Amino acid sequence: MSATSSSGPIVLRGMGSFHVGGRVVEIGGKPPRTVTFSTGSPPAEVDPNGLYQVEQMYVQYFLPQQRRGKFPLLLWHGGGLSGVTYETTPDGRDGWLNMFVRYGWDVYNCDAVERGRSGFAGRDVWPGEPLHVPKADPFTRFRLGSSWSAEKMVAHPGQQFPVEAYDNFMRQIVPRWLDTADATRAAYVALVERIGPCVIVVHSQGGGFGFRIAEQCPGKVKALVAIEPAVVGDPAKVAALDTVPVLMLYGDYIAETPRWAAMREAGRDYAQTLRAAGGQIDEVDLPVIGIRGNSHMLMMDKNNDDIAALIQGWLERTGLVD
Amino acid sequence: MSATSSSGPIVLRGMGSFHVGGRVVEIGGKPPRTVTFSTGSPPAEVDPNGLYQVEQMYVQYFLPQQRRGKFPLLLWHGGGLSGVTYETTPDGRDGWLNMFVRYGWDVYNCDAVERGRSGFAGRDVWPGEPLHVPKADPFTRFRLGSSWSAEKMVAHPGQQFPVEAYDNFMRQIVPRWLDTADATRAAYVALVERIGPCVIVVHSQGGGFGFRIAEQCPGKVKALVAIEPAVVGDPAKVAALDTVPVLMLYGDYIAETPRWAAMREAGRDYAQTLRAAGGQIDEVDLPVIGIRGNSHMLMMDKNNDDIAALIQGWLERTGLVD
Repeated sequence: MSATSSSGPIVLRGMGSFHVGGRVVEIGGKPPRTVTFSTGSPPAEVDPNGLYQVEQMYVQYFLPQQRRGKFPLLLWHGGGLSGVTYETTPDGRDGWLNMFVRYGWDVYNCDAVERGRSGFAGRDVWPGEPLHVPKADPFTRFRLGSSWSAEKMVAHPGQQFPVEAYDNFMRQIVPRWLDTADATRAAYVALVERIGPCVIVVHSQGGGFGFRIAEQCPGKVKALVAIEPAVVGDPAKVAALDTVPVLMLYGDYIAETPRWAAMREAGRDYAQTLRAAGGQIDEVDLPVIGIRGNSHMLMMDKNNDDIAALIQGWLERTGLVD
Repeated sequence: MSATSSSGPIVLRGMGSFHVGGRVVEIGGKPPRTVTFSTGSPPAEVDPNGLYQVEQMYVQYFLPQQRRGKFPLLLWHGGGLSGVTYETTPDGRDGWLNMFVRYGWDVYNCDAVERGRSGFAGRDVWPGEPLHVPKADPFTRFRLGSSWSAEKMVAHPGQQFPVEAYDNFMRQIVPRWLDTADATRAAYVALVERIGPCVIVVHSQGGGFGFRIAEQCPGKVKALVAIEPAVVGDPAKVAALDTVPVLMLYGDYIAETPRWAAMREAGRDYAQTLRAAGGQIDEVDLPVIGIRGNSHMLMMDKNNDDIAALIQGWLERTGLVD
């Protein structure tokens, strides 16, 4: 296994951000309005008609001085979240962003379209309402435990998620639309076109995008690490992945959670089809290899460094580390 | 003036993020719904009733190995924007975040409440609509030039803003509500309570928050750098700022822009009142000291390194740098 990733300074040859993709739409027929942008400042006239920039995606990057990863590593988060997923954990430990930078990867951490710093389009462009979820919802859906209320939360026995910091986790949750998949996919394609050959780590909803982009951008995806993908690839397109090594990684408490059991099963079926077509795909169920108690948010769990090391080991064995 | 800030690696003893502040609200009386979170994944039952976390604020921090700033330096952006304001410029140069980290400051870069990675509350909590602005609007309002259309943009002569990258700048713009100032102020107070004594750099809409927090948190704000503040302090509360050195900085093209001329005048009046009460406030109009062509987005302008050096020089003279 690789050296520990949590000590010593982080030495970067660069860090920064950019937005990629999106499109321009025209909106007309609105009356002009007078807007006070800051209480107490002089009002401004705003003409709401004209061209709008929409559906771009925010990407923040960290480039270590000692680069060891052969390709840039892209971190794609899951639904209702942003790139914050991979930053400091809710209880204040290093997240995977820091760990993979310390391992020597050029890391590009995204906020998917309409999440976080990517901004979101107005009602004229996206008629649908964004979904907001109450505090009780992710607690069970992300397999932290069986129930949450302000008075009492019941965590699964042996839970690795830092449930004592669940309030901080809920501060990370952002609203999400349910019908923006095409725009999101387009922005991820634009990112991969810009970055070139890369390794992609996807989580949950990001899984569907990761497999699709691997199918759609031949030669660009050098490896795909799918952390509990909610959606996997298209069995009819496994030929497009014949040179893309895939690692699928799943946590604990899946068998006893019907929705997750179904997603795990879909992953197993897909892996079988891909393998039969000559693809290289490894499936890791953490409890099977003796690592127990992981929630859906593995990158935040108390053993997140062990899981990062496991992924790094796989990337090394796959020949992607100098 | 300080050494150049743009060469050599960035060496950090730590970097990460957290959310601060916010409150919990209860929402009831909604029917349960079935949600497909990712196209192709099994649907989930969501009970939209219950407790919601709202109005928290996202903060990302970078802690240089060689710390020279005596206190943490907080970057607060302006309206319609996020912490991206201080990151890489639209044309790909280093932003102030990198520059102040290289100068040796512990830098905390915020997304104000309801912007970027802070997320936003639903219609039940905030009944108002967010404002979206078309591409033509910030071009004139932020003093880049006299007009913008898809066919032609007319920049002010000598403009320092990288207008050739204006499309990238528009990708940074995020929707904003016009009635969330109380929530934003509460989150900034929570941040300053958490960080302790600090230096605050505010821009535009952030100006109003910076002065208010200085008034509200005695002893906490060791210096306030107000970059073209849209709103300044309360003349009735200047006594609260008698130990807070203030630098106010303004760019070019202000006299010929009535709305900006009014904001500059308000700053001048406030400075006079504060000075008369014994406060220390410096006003810099860049054209007066021979630096011409700066837009409202000084931290992105082509001479952003010169402006950063000017601020750093002031902070050094103010005794805030070891």
